[in-house]
Amino acid sequence: MAHSEDKREIYARAQLGHRLGFGKCPAIIVVDFQIGFTVPEQSPLAGNLDTEVEATNDLIDAARHKGIPVIFTVVGYDAHRQDDAGLWPQKAPSLRALTLGSDLVKLDPRLKQEPGDLLITKKYASGFFGTYLASTLTMQSVDTAIIAGCTTSGCVRATVMDALANGFRPIIPVECVGDRAQEPHEANLFDIGSKYGDVLPLEEVLAYLRGL
Amino acid sequence: MAHSEDKREIYARAQLGHRLGFGKCPAIIVVDFQIGFTVPEQSPLAGNLDTEVEATNDLIDAARHKGIPVIFTVVGYDAHRQDDAGLWPQKAPSLRALTLGSDLVKLDPRLKQEPGDLLITKKYASGFFGTYLASTLTMQSVDTAIIAGCTTSGCVRATVMDALANGFRPIIPVECVGDRAQEPHEANLFDIGSKYGDVLPLEEVLAYLRGL
Amino acid sequence: MAHSEDKREIYARAQLGHRLGFGKCPAIIVVDFQIGFTVPEQSPLAGNLDTEVEATNDLIDAARHKGIPVIFTVVGYDAHRQDDAGLWPQKAPSLRALTLGSDLVKLDPRLKQEPGDLLITKKYASGFFGTYLASTLTMQSVDTAIIAGCTTSGCVRATVMDALANGFRPIIPVECVGDRAQEPHEANLFDIGSKYGDVLPLEEVLAYLRGL
Amino acid sequence: MAHSEDKREIYARAQLGHRLGFGKCPAIIVVDFQIGFTVPEQSPLAGNLDTEVEATNDLIDAARHKGIPVIFTVVGYDAHRQDDAGLWPQKAPSLRALTLGSDLVKLDPRLKQEPGDLLITKKYASGFFGTYLASTLTMQSVDTAIIAGCTTSGCVRATVMDALANGFRPIIPVECVGDRAQEPHEANLFDIGSKYGDVLPLEEVLAYLRGL
Repeated sequence: MAHSEDKREIYARAQLGHRLGFGKCPAIIVVDFQIGFTVPEQSPLAGNLDTEVEATNDLIDAARHKGIPVIFTVVGYDAHRQDDAGLWPQKAPSLRALTLGSDLVKLDPRLKQEPGDLLITKKYASGFFGTYLASTLTMQSVDTAIIAGCTTSGCVRATVMDALANGFRPIIPVECVGDRAQEPHEANLFDIGSKYGDVLPLEEVLAYLRGL
Repeated sequence: MAHSEDKREIYARAQLGHRLGFGKCPAIIVVDFQIGFTVPEQSPLAGNLDTEVEATNDLIDAARHKGIPVIFTVVGYDAHRQDDAGLWPQKAPSLRALTLGSDLVKLDPRLKQEPGDLLITKKYASGFFGTYLASTLTMQSVDTAIIAGCTTSGCVRATVMDALANGFRPIIPVECVGDRAQEPHEANLFDIGSKYGDVLPLEEVLAYLRGL
Repeated sequence: MAHSEDKREIYARAQLGHRLGFGKCPAIIVVDFQIGFTVPEQSPLAGNLDTEVEATNDLIDAARHKGIPVIFTVVGYDAHRQDDAGLWPQKAPSLRALTLGSDLVKLDPRLKQEPGDLLITKKYASGFFGTYLASTLTMQSVDTAIIAGCTTSGCVRATVMDALANGFRPIIPVECVGDRAQEPHEANLFDIGSKYGDVLPLEEVLAYLRGL
Repeated sequence: MAHSEDKREIYARAQLGHRLGFGKCPAIIVVDFQIGFTVPEQSPLAGNLDTEVEATNDLIDAARHKGIPVIFTVVGYDAHRQDDAGLWPQKAPSLRALTLGSDLVKLDPRLKQEPGDLLITKKYASGFFGTYLASTLTMQSVDTAIIAGCTTSGCVRATVMDALANGFRPIIPVECVGDRAQEPHEANLFDIGSKYGDVLPLEEVLAYLRGL
């Protein structure tokens, strides 16, 4: 590998980082803004994501005005049924604390959730893996997945990659995604912006939504 | 987000980075060691991956001695059929050069490939997405996916994440994976080792294979 | 098409209907034996499946003795969240009665269910579609899916087809599957036995389980 | 099960067989009209499907006039790579004759195929399983899958079921699908029309296409 050259120069030469652009029919997907990830006092897996939750509420407000679907995902495991958790908690045992029915699996109460919003419980990082998210978006003729949530280096990145592979244009409003540490956050935004989705200022995404 | 604290301390507190461990029935998956990614003279997408290809041959040798399946993936698109490429080349237009039948889609000739090895052509980053890789591994009762190839920040990471989600233990011999730039390589090894698979010295993986 | 010849002769000439055989590591999958399908007094979708439920309990008993996993699926929709149901209830509006939390989505109480058994809620016919069933079976090194439940022409057939495609050997103990009408039941057992799984007497499946 | 009552009465009472209706953005999917299934002189798996191929050409003509995508699937296995075939040929050994590169995997030459049409090679019954068909249709904002081909009781039914589950409205022009035997053909059209897609006269589908 090239050890000294800047990654930005190398990636520009590889023609990475072009823009996908917005489609005509977006949905908002809010990934894992559940107490287990957003309230550090209650969960070792959490980080302070106050500004990201607030920015996501601005995104949700804009979507509501246009009747755009808002979908939430959470990670949760059944504490009483064997094999519900799969392999992932063997790698990250703290995931086992995310038991269905517990506070850690509840959406952050600051989120402007409404009763009719789809809520998808998942077992792995991607909101698309082992769920009916892709078919639900397809059935609604969605072509653009605006993705908020946490963590940038975990479930957000996984959901972005699968959104692209499933045929949806991933848009990431940068103020709406966060991580428990800054370095993986930035490294993954670089990867996402180079190869999988458009990382944009929230204001640009809000302007797109207002213009629909 | 916490801006100053070291990511390693934060991740240790979150109890990330435990070890999955080896299973009983491994397969080797070599991701995208095709000319389009390994021969910089012929492709803007490529990096120098000479030592990674060589280390992967050591891995393949050890697998052959034990009758362990070796599976190769390549990325390739049909230049003559509309819509074969999907959304990905809109983000990274240089991918369009990877046309089926061209040299860029051929496996690196230095690899110790044999005619009976499964070769899977894919359209997206993950070797599992839109392919029959998972069902083929399941049918063989494989429980451990030893993953080599490139790029660490792209198709290797995607394949590792999907291996875990599909129920296989991902093992990444660190000498066998590479990228076009050092920084994303290291950042993604950190993410993988923290959350999705065991990043190990090649020697430890070879010892496991010899001991089967 | 040949209009007069018997289907059995045509299929024999096409070399269909060979036997997959048992593997080494089975799981029991009980499809949709929920009140909505098994108690005609409560649901227009239901049929009388008393003997099939009883035969399935014999299957479950044999599995418990050997520590073999028993997995149940149900179909259920969130009555309060838009888009949870997908396209299927547009084709079969009575499915909308299967609301999460209602009796119709509860497992038939005659089933010998235990608290630790995995219970998977699905939205479509196949137990594998949009769920984590395949990855859970893979993670347990399951190679054989013994499939009971209802309806033969609906969710059982769909689950059998996806079991095969996902790399598991489908075994159907014929006394353990039923339908709301006899003709589709028999027609689908013919299709399954010809192309997708081994339709066997329950006694033969019990003998296999006892011999493990 | 009810042994004497007519299936049509039972299904009407269960409120099955409602109509999905056409969407706004269709694609044509022609399933497995390859020599191995359409030329009985060359393949034990084939049946006489002359009128079905001819009717499908009418469907293709109507689609071309409106710029609607036409996608073909074939089943094919690599004769030289172990494990390419998966479990299916163990159930139906004649499938092994469908070797990649052989005539049996070539599209029936009577079909009005054009070089730019997407051609998807699959390993299992459903055109969606282990392929990138769903993501390609989603990327094109397709909402309606008009499905022709063979066999009604095999790959057509599987593709119809997965089309619905993936979020596309399945439409089956009845003159365009066929089987090697009449009884499974009719039984599966009943199942499809009751639960998974709209079985319609070709003329009604052509009128819809002309009206777009």
